[in-house]
Amino acid sequence: MADHSPLSARREGVFPALQELKAQGFLTTALPNVRYLTGFTGSHGALLLTADRALLFTDPRYATQAPRESDCEVKVAKGPLLKELAKWTKRLQLRSLAFEQNRISFEDYGQLKEHAETLRLKPVTGLIETLRAVKSEAEIAAIRASVTLNSAALEQSLRYFKPSMRERDLAAEIEYRMRRLGAESTAFETIVASGERSALPHARPTGARIQLNELLLIDMGASVAGYASDMTRTYAVGRLDAKRRRMYRAVLQSQLAALAAIQPGVTCAGVDRAARNALRGFGLDKLFIHSTGHGLGLEIHERPRVGRKDKTKLVTGMVITVEPGVYEEGLGGVRIEDTVVVTANGCETLTPTGKELLTL
Amino acid sequence: MADHSPLSARREGVFPALQELKAQGFLTTALPNVRYLTGFTGSHGALLLTADRALLFTDPRYATQAPRESDCEVKVAKGPLLKELAKWTKRLQLRSLAFEQNRISFEDYGQLKEHAETLRLKPVTGLIETLRAVKSEAEIAAIRASVTLNSAALEQSLRYFKPSMRERDLAAEIEYRMRRLGAESTAFETIVASGERSALPHARPTGARIQLNELLLIDMGASVAGYASDMTRTYAVGRLDAKRRRMYRAVLQSQLAALAAIQPGVTCAGVDRAARNALRGFGLDKLFIHSTGHGLGLEIHERPRVGRKDKTKLVTGMVITVEPGVYEEGLGGVRIEDTVVVTANGCETLTPTGKELLTL
Repeated sequence: MADHSPLSARREGVFPALQELKAQGFLTTALPNVRYLTGFTGSHGALLLTADRALLFTDPRYATQAPRESDCEVKVAKGPLLKELAKWTKRLQLRSLAFEQNRISFEDYGQLKEHAETLRLKPVTGLIETLRAVKSEAEIAAIRASVTLNSAALEQSLRYFKPSMRERDLAAEIEYRMRRLGAESTAFETIVASGERSALPHARPTGARIQLNELLLIDMGASVAGYASDMTRTYAVGRLDAKRRRMYRAVLQSQLAALAAIQPGVTCAGVDRAARNALRGFGLDKLFIHSTGHGLGLEIHERPRVGRKDKTKLVTGMVITVEPGVYEEGLGGVRIEDTVVVTANGCETLTPTGKELLTL
Repeated sequence: MADHSPLSARREGVFPALQELKAQGFLTTALPNVRYLTGFTGSHGALLLTADRALLFTDPRYATQAPRESDCEVKVAKGPLLKELAKWTKRLQLRSLAFEQNRISFEDYGQLKEHAETLRLKPVTGLIETLRAVKSEAEIAAIRASVTLNSAALEQSLRYFKPSMRERDLAAEIEYRMRRLGAESTAFETIVASGERSALPHARPTGARIQLNELLLIDMGASVAGYASDMTRTYAVGRLDAKRRRMYRAVLQSQLAALAAIQPGVTCAGVDRAARNALRGFGLDKLFIHSTGHGLGLEIHERPRVGRKDKTKLVTGMVITVEPGVYEEGLGGVRIEDTVVVTANGCETLTPTGKELLTL
């Protein structure tokens, strides 16, 4: 909110793509994109961007808030935002408009068509999301604050840990600590999965009690001033057998190998490969059933995707997670995840929490 | 999950509308609608419904869970669900398909068009949402469980209340209690707003400390086994002046008047009018700047909307909120909200929490 001038620089970044598309204007209704380009944090908004105007449409609930947060011209619409916005495309004599085809409903598209009959609509995908992949200094600071808070919440929660507590009670404790430390909310559904359930990559916390001599997997993230954090740690509850300890060592080596592979110019697929190669040394690569990581920022999943097939080259300022995992049905799973920023020489791990196998 | 037979009855309910539309099939990608018609609770699914088949599409993460939860034929797609689904429309020789135009992105619509070139696509709005407005006994029981848990969470949280605590710390306490009592999550962002801030109908909890001799507004809801609850209470922190106490009396009378107006056959606009008329007696109707209520169930906002213009007639089994409020800038706001079910003779208030002005 304080940094208005970077907003107009961000909006400038849209124009090269618009020229290529031969579009005179750009429309976004996706809230994270609206926020990125305007500073507006409300729950209902649309941005119309032209060569010399930036119009932010919202409803009367945000009549006071929108002009405080944004340097754009605010238009408060009493009816549907897109109907009002369509009127403005006429008033501004726009002949063509780029719109985000994966972010707009078929109905909203129809509304635009209906109220701006002569406007040529040009579908685009990922224009703003690509700009958002490389973070500014202020954004990196915001993510760092979120990551730091998230780690503090985990540390505080573990003080209350007792074997035989319920998964969902530990999740409640974690989310409570996040909130108390100043998070608006979680960035995604907290995962607390123990024993066999740790083998399900998207396990919801249940009423099940956390068992002794089993793995415990915690995947958690906070939303702080709009920015997400994301961290996974896996613990030993009591004593682990040799097989589970070996799984842990393998995943840790895999994660360190992926981190070591990160530098500007390397592809995301290259980082993913480094993680898989390390697991292959343990014969565990077949049990790694998801991607190595993903970008994060205003949303929990952003570009780039750090997967097998993603050819995106890393750029200084990208913020990504690195989270290899190994899952064996009936036994359990291990995942270790940090959030890192790509730097000129490699990467900086933002997550301060240790990664050696800890026994709770 | 336990009641499979009602699912096929729900799906039967779709066919009269399809016949009217002259559509041979129906597609939904909206998760609450998918869940309603199939029982599947995962985060990625699509349903293709024809006269004699019900195909549920999901991705490999849900290969085990989907057949456990749903009585539909499960198709696990490795690529985009709609591409796979389009193939099936060909295999089943469908010539026409109704789709939810406000629930599908322009891009997904395009994908369907591309992979099922000869299929006639027929846009519909609100078909399933209209069916969902009237709840079954099992759904009412689920909402009752959510409402009961929500009230218990409030009661437990207030034991920890201290004047001068931060809004966000009280919100943290409330959400912690919900979780501990077994909620999956909140149903929406918890509102804890004190003093002047209670005049903002969508205030986010801040780091501000709750002041003595001011109003305190709490709006909270839990999600329990998929079903939402929603309740608002306003409290006196210390002593309130006569003006604020009068605001409270006015809103309580307004809420009771709206409840008394509810019965099958009455329009939503009629209920809204009853709330506004009661406030007019206090000269406060102009400060009531939102609708009187809304349906709730698998989503926090469902049909019907209980507003000035909604001509929907109430039907036994509809579950709605009743939540008039009065907001005066610089002074504060009062809102009182219960969740109720429409019965043969009027309505039953599900919310067990008292409504007399309480001093904290």
